[in-house]
Amino acid sequence: MTKNRLEAFSDGVLAIIITIMVLELRAPQGVEIGALKPLLPVFLSYVLSFLYLGIYWNNHHHLLHTVHHVSGGILWANLYLLFWLSLFPFATAWIGENHIAPTPTAVYGFILLMAAMAYYILQRAIIAKQGRASLLAAAIGSDWKGKISPVLYLAAIPLSFVHPWIGHGLYVFVALLWLIPDRRIERALANREA
Amino acid sequence: MTKNRLEAFSDGVLAIIITIMVLELRAPQGVEIGALKPLLPVFLSYVLSFLYLGIYWNNHHHLLHTVHHVSGGILWANLYLLFWLSLFPFATAWIGENHIAPTPTAVYGFILLMAAMAYYILQRAIIAKQGRASLLAAAIGSDWKGKISPVLYLAAIPLSFVHPWIGHGLYVFVALLWLIPDRRIERALANREA
Amino acid sequence: MTKNRLEAFSDGVLAIIITIMVLELRAPQGVEIGALKPLLPVFLSYVLSFLYLGIYWNNHHHLLHTVHHVSGGILWANLYLLFWLSLFPFATAWIGENHIAPTPTAVYGFILLMAAMAYYILQRAIIAKQGRASLLAAAIGSDWKGKISPVLYLAAIPLSFVHPWIGHGLYVFVALLWLIPDRRIERALANREA
Amino acid sequence: MTKNRLEAFSDGVLAIIITIMVLELRAPQGVEIGALKPLLPVFLSYVLSFLYLGIYWNNHHHLLHTVHHVSGGILWANLYLLFWLSLFPFATAWIGENHIAPTPTAVYGFILLMAAMAYYILQRAIIAKQGRASLLAAAIGSDWKGKISPVLYLAAIPLSFVHPWIGHGLYVFVALLWLIPDRRIERALANREA
Repeated sequence: MTKNRLEAFSDGVLAIIITIMVLELRAPQGVEIGALKPLLPVFLSYVLSFLYLGIYWNNHHHLLHTVHHVSGGILWANLYLLFWLSLFPFATAWIGENHIAPTPTAVYGFILLMAAMAYYILQRAIIAKQGRASLLAAAIGSDWKGKISPVLYLAAIPLSFVHPWIGHGLYVFVALLWLIPDRRIERALANREA
Repeated sequence: MTKNRLEAFSDGVLAIIITIMVLELRAPQGVEIGALKPLLPVFLSYVLSFLYLGIYWNNHHHLLHTVHHVSGGILWANLYLLFWLSLFPFATAWIGENHIAPTPTAVYGFILLMAAMAYYILQRAIIAKQGRASLLAAAIGSDWKGKISPVLYLAAIPLSFVHPWIGHGLYVFVALLWLIPDRRIERALANREA
Repeated sequence: MTKNRLEAFSDGVLAIIITIMVLELRAPQGVEIGALKPLLPVFLSYVLSFLYLGIYWNNHHHLLHTVHHVSGGILWANLYLLFWLSLFPFATAWIGENHIAPTPTAVYGFILLMAAMAYYILQRAIIAKQGRASLLAAAIGSDWKGKISPVLYLAAIPLSFVHPWIGHGLYVFVALLWLIPDRRIERALANREA
Repeated sequence: MTKNRLEAFSDGVLAIIITIMVLELRAPQGVEIGALKPLLPVFLSYVLSFLYLGIYWNNHHHLLHTVHHVSGGILWANLYLLFWLSLFPFATAWIGENHIAPTPTAVYGFILLMAAMAYYILQRAIIAKQGRASLLAAAIGSDWKGKISPVLYLAAIPLSFVHPWIGHGLYVFVALLWLIPDRRIERALANREA
């Protein structure tokens, strides 16, 4: 039951974050199709952040699936993750309004990096509670995606000052990497049931 | 349990989408009854979108009722549907502020079309998981509503440039068509229990 | 399960309605305590609407408690109620910004009236599903509160044009009337269990 | 079930409160890193309020854990708590925009004080329902945190007029005090199960 409430609260926060970003997509003044053109970067940054939040929701969902007892540490690690995710609407609005500017692109990468680290902390808090021999520890295994993502975000920060499109390219690349759902946990669960 | 979280997240997103649209209904400056008059198109477009989101929630509710196991494909098909539904507040604001303009009316139809296609993809993802002989596949049957709606949205896009009222008329017509709740699934469920 | 989702969606919509009203309470420019003074009517109208939405949530909670099977009619009656409740933030903002103006006060009363009628329709839809001998039908009994409230809202509409404070006085009076939680259903449930 | 809905509604309201505060963090006009500097006080006040709402969610979660039957008194005490918490976005925006001003700092302390008192009332309402020998009454025990917090908020109100940083210092101090999760209830539950 404790876990249900953690999931419900996380779902609520994620649902609100994902939805309030759309408030940034303001109806244009004009009524011609051309009036939508200046909204294109806002729309594209919305799509990117929607993807990232969808990935986080999806992985969070799998991650919590392995949890039975929620400790205080897990509660706070989860809130810490939600904190960094709650900054997505801000960063999305900033890159959307100034798409090819280096600093907003780098700041977006910084928030992605902090969220990835918060997710890692949450994983550790769950494994610490379950013990090293836990299902989650086995499922994660070498976790190359979880290891390469922060490296790419970290690289994107300075590279955004070389050219912002390098940063955006890296963010899209990592998102596509994760879009393939995390079958490791599903497989480990299936193996155990077998 | 997995399914519960999918429903809870979808309910959260739909509840927020349906409610933030009302933020567009800003309190007028004047205090006379006439001050409400310029709000009328905003109000009517709110009513139309509220109806559509109510219909989607209603049908989504019936659709998920038939699901037992949630695959990665279903998760992402569901997020893809929520993405297009999340653009309703934008499109609603645009038609509300410029009610009889052709382009906003056509763009509204485009978003309705994409949402209808996303709903279709979600149906297919569920049937793919359950097999062709599934309860849902039987319940949907010929699905004339699901087939005629996208055709009417598609027709509404060019016809909005002939006259925007044709587009609006078609949107209202399709909404009324769906307002009659989808008893096919209810009936198939009842038959099986019998 | 069907009922759970109806409750979850209603809770989500009510939670959002109740919370977005606070966005109208904008931080003032000044930093003196006097800077809060112009916010007082906005604050008071927020308190009034918070009370009303709390009452609706509370009564909705008791009402749904008696439901076992959710029909299409109940789903749509519930959405119709949520529609009128979703107009509270608009009406609250309008009276908050122009507290003693007659028309906004009357419009607030109109929305209260429509919500009360929608609640009545929802009650009827539930009783229609359960049959006249249902627990809810017995619990509601003579329902003097449910009968007197719309009459008082209806009276408040023209009386707001005599003086807006009469309207506000009536709204506060009805809210206080309902603040006493609806023990009728609780009692009927307790009697049955005994 | 009744309790589930109380938790779900509270989670919804808390999730929305915590998330709409981020709307105050508006994307700056400039695209240089210096453009973020004026946002720093807004960001810090967001962090502080996020912490407080996280603490309230966490403690609320533990508090409700001990409840089996929800009375009308508990419902209304809970709504009263949510009311004061719903004023956090307002107070956060006011201190964020004028960080070192005395009055906003004092008003923030006043809202913290009222929320703390509302939480105390909710505790009492639950104990009143369960009886003095209840699990919660035992778990709370001397409750030094719950007693010292309102005293510190009360002190912070006049001291904010001496210097606003004293107020902010006290708010941060109390938040850190609570960040250590409330193990009293966890321990009492564990003892009982043993």
